[in-house]
Amino acid sequence: MKNVMKITDEFGLVNKITRGFKNYHNLVAGVGDDTAVIKNGNKYLLLTCDALAEGDHFDCSWSTPEQIGNKAVEVNVSDVASTGGRPTLMLISIAITKDTPEEWVVGVYRGIKQVCNKYKITLAGGDTINSGVRLISIALLGESEKPILRSGARVGDLIGVTGVVGGAAAGLRLLKQGAKISSLLKQKHLSPRARLDISDKIARYAHSMIDISDGVASEIKHICEESRKGAMVYAEQIPLCPGANLAEALSGGEDYELLFTLAPGDTQKLKNSGVGFTIIGEVTEKKNGIVLKKEGRNQTMPDGYNHFI
Amino acid sequence: MKNVMKITDEFGLVNKITRGFKNYHNLVAGVGDDTAVIKNGNKYLLLTCDALAEGDHFDCSWSTPEQIGNKAVEVNVSDVASTGGRPTLMLISIAITKDTPEEWVVGVYRGIKQVCNKYKITLAGGDTINSGVRLISIALLGESEKPILRSGARVGDLIGVTGVVGGAAAGLRLLKQGAKISSLLKQKHLSPRARLDISDKIARYAHSMIDISDGVASEIKHICEESRKGAMVYAEQIPLCPGANLAEALSGGEDYELLFTLAPGDTQKLKNSGVGFTIIGEVTEKKNGIVLKKEGRNQTMPDGYNHFI
Repeated sequence: MKNVMKITDEFGLVNKITRGFKNYHNLVAGVGDDTAVIKNGNKYLLLTCDALAEGDHFDCSWSTPEQIGNKAVEVNVSDVASTGGRPTLMLISIAITKDTPEEWVVGVYRGIKQVCNKYKITLAGGDTINSGVRLISIALLGESEKPILRSGARVGDLIGVTGVVGGAAAGLRLLKQGAKISSLLKQKHLSPRARLDISDKIARYAHSMIDISDGVASEIKHICEESRKGAMVYAEQIPLCPGANLAEALSGGEDYELLFTLAPGDTQKLKNSGVGFTIIGEVTEKKNGIVLKKEGRNQTMPDGYNHFI
Repeated sequence: MKNVMKITDEFGLVNKITRGFKNYHNLVAGVGDDTAVIKNGNKYLLLTCDALAEGDHFDCSWSTPEQIGNKAVEVNVSDVASTGGRPTLMLISIAITKDTPEEWVVGVYRGIKQVCNKYKITLAGGDTINSGVRLISIALLGESEKPILRSGARVGDLIGVTGVVGGAAAGLRLLKQGAKISSLLKQKHLSPRARLDISDKIARYAHSMIDISDGVASEIKHICEESRKGAMVYAEQIPLCPGANLAEALSGGEDYELLFTLAPGDTQKLKNSGVGFTIIGEVTEKKNGIVLKKEGRNQTMPDGYNHFI
């Protein structure tokens, strides 16, 4: 249908619609990064905003209200973590349908509160509106002395990934199939955790960083695009979550692990600081493009998760 | 229905669900004010977040996409204006349905861009998600040297209102009836404007301030509640928009004019600075409650607009 938004065009559309906006303030990074980064005296202010909609991001039959509240905050904290910052203040907009039970809203807020208190985030206000679907939109402020952007990757950097990936997508697949599911995969999909526990250690060495919300393939593309570089990624080195396949790791999304690039000489220092990560490739010249080496053969990197499919 | 959220309970629920959150940062005002106010060096950072949902806040058959984009930004700017601040940076989350035409999204962004450039707001990022309804959620940052809160009203203050009120609700009523509508009322409902043009002048004198998003009655209640005061309001002095009735001014909402309190001795100074406003009452002791004087008789102030009715 000619007039309907092309489902593969999310990023093209964003470029189109954001043209013509001007930078009137000390915006260091904005559209195209995980968080907006604003110079604020000697520090940087971070600002991010993510919305979770029923159906697309959560399913009330699989998730308790607490889990939905947890996830809504964790995915925003993940954006701040990926910039190497600390979260500070949060605003919430919750849209509810007319038949939403009060217990559901109270439960979501209980989940939000747990994560806010875990990370010492201050709830600074919010808004509750009526809508045709349940939706939670969160704006999160953070701060950083030295923000790590997507645009800092250098040729020769190694590409690191924390934890294991693909688990959230594998969990979603099994839940959809109604199949037997391990508690690990269930947790990966329903209760993702931001890697704020290690992000500051990585930020000491990383040249660029991003959180894995749309799959390894998509995040590498974002880093390469913003840094004007290429990449060589070794499929067999990608640390798969038990039960997940390579496609889920590359294009599945919602793992919320961190993907970063750093100088080869710094990998041992980062390991010594107690951070668990896996090197999955290296940053190359832009002209080489983004290559996935699999079973000894070079392939084109597949696309990441697209919310509009 | 026992388990379903009580429609009159918005504010009670907010109190219930926000209990147990802690202030880990320099939050001066938060839940209960138009914007969160955070101490930031010698200045204050303002942060607000508002969502507009199709059906509840806009109707695609009445509003052009540009008007919807305009309104989404204006209502957030209004929150910053009511704190006496200037808007700086903005994040957008847009939820669209699968059949949303691309032109609609482009048009909404065009409307957003117009207002951003008018007020010199920097677009700092955003998120486009899929959902069962169209919804626009905006987080807006601002700054102020001396924020005006809801809690600053003093006994003896006069209560002022800018412009005219009730027009947005009257416009909505006529649009719903399919009746003949003046261009003024149509503009009041479809194209509200934040009073950023005069808010800084008012902030020089105001002890407390709020924007009229839920009707004069509701805003006076908020000021009295946060300031622990009472109020005497004179119905005949409320500046009605031509075509609007008193109920629409008191309980209609979406006028986005400013309501403020100031010392009687400052009213002439504010008038001399070129601000048009009307005195509609005065701040009294808390024990007197909130009284509406109409046709010489004291009445209880009616309720403001409730989004859940």
